[in-house]
Amino acid sequence: MSAIAARIQELGLQLPAPAAPAGSYVPVAQTGNLLIVSGQLPFCDGSLLAEGPVPSTCSLENAVEGAKQCGLNALSALQHHLGDLDRVSRVVRVGVFVASDPEFTAQPTVANGVSDLFFSVFGEAGRHARAAVGCPSLPLGTAVEVEVMVEISGD
Amino acid sequence: MSAIAARIQELGLQLPAPAAPAGSYVPVAQTGNLLIVSGQLPFCDGSLLAEGPVPSTCSLENAVEGAKQCGLNALSALQHHLGDLDRVSRVVRVGVFVASDPEFTAQPTVANGVSDLFFSVFGEAGRHARAAVGCPSLPLGTAVEVEVMVEISGD
Amino acid sequence: MSAIAARIQELGLQLPAPAAPAGSYVPVAQTGNLLIVSGQLPFCDGSLLAEGPVPSTCSLENAVEGAKQCGLNALSALQHHLGDLDRVSRVVRVGVFVASDPEFTAQPTVANGVSDLFFSVFGEAGRHARAAVGCPSLPLGTAVEVEVMVEISGD
Repeated sequence: MSAIAARIQELGLQLPAPAAPAGSYVPVAQTGNLLIVSGQLPFCDGSLLAEGPVPSTCSLENAVEGAKQCGLNALSALQHHLGDLDRVSRVVRVGVFVASDPEFTAQPTVANGVSDLFFSVFGEAGRHARAAVGCPSLPLGTAVEVEVMVEISGD
Repeated sequence: MSAIAARIQELGLQLPAPAAPAGSYVPVAQTGNLLIVSGQLPFCDGSLLAEGPVPSTCSLENAVEGAKQCGLNALSALQHHLGDLDRVSRVVRVGVFVASDPEFTAQPTVANGVSDLFFSVFGEAGRHARAAVGCPSLPLGTAVEVEVMVEISGD
Repeated sequence: MSAIAARIQELGLQLPAPAAPAGSYVPVAQTGNLLIVSGQLPFCDGSLLAEGPVPSTCSLENAVEGAKQCGLNALSALQHHLGDLDRVSRVVRVGVFVASDPEFTAQPTVANGVSDLFFSVFGEAGRHARAAVGCPSLPLGTAVEVEVMVEISGD
């Protein structure tokens, strides 16, 4: 078992099955040693864990959990693409979009759900640049969507 | 004629004239073999094809057409920068921003307008990572804005 | 004094002290010769210069100033990471998120606050690709958030 797979197990986490491509785009696109993961939604066993907006429809706590689930789905997509998450040398960037009521301004707290996950899984290599913003609505009514860029070590 | 130019003609599509730079930024910025295209609006012959939000002001069908036009404008900017679209080796990332009423959650359908275009033009090399989100409003009242990153083959 | 530091002084600008990391993410992440700066808010001496949305709560002029301050904070983060801003060979991409009332469509004008700053400081190397969009709300109630990608010359 790879080191990262062992770490995920140790944290009591499970990677979901990778989602099938849903159109003329792909879950992960590679250029050189950079991988871009398409915007992930907090699906778990086929249903959305967090529907927005926050906080009128989705609590802050639930949105944080949703962001973490988006991160797990991104890891699943990367695992499927790479075969082994040990090849990830650095999480470079995380973009977090939060379905927000006009008065909601705690998007960074929601984003911590995925940022903390990546730090737990990858340690210092999991620390990334981040942008977190609000949206009036998001695909399928999700409360949160997460986009990820990682660097991999040479083939 | 280049292969991609021929393919665009075969699809019955026309690239618009490239838009002039509109400030202290540029239509396309290059770093290494990556090109980032600035956010494109669905201009055609000087007027916006799709004004938002969706669906109260712009129908879903019109927004999909708008996303396709944004993609054509991105191709025009790349053609102008590169001279030959055959140099594009991969569409890496597409970001789609849709002016959305709070209850609108079909941003992926809108985004298919540009994703399908890139797949039609470039084939498998046109498949990209994608993030599609909602916005309350966008520049000049557009219904959709599209940002693109492509990889080019070595000079 | 480095050339860019001298230029900043000549423009009558001051770089704020770099903000401390605020969680499991970092102000700047590097991959190869690319640096991604986390989303910057218009903080100055510990308080937000521009609170949104625009224009009901924040005037257009104030939002433009806010975008410029976000840019100064991004330069401060880069200075802290690099030691010397002369190492920046190109500003590649700027993402501008503007807290917007539904009828506000002048996000490009707000974005010019940071685009013009980068052109003033770096000259032609400061011209970048850009995407500017509206959001219903942003972290801590800011009127504007700016994300930056720059290229550096080899070590």
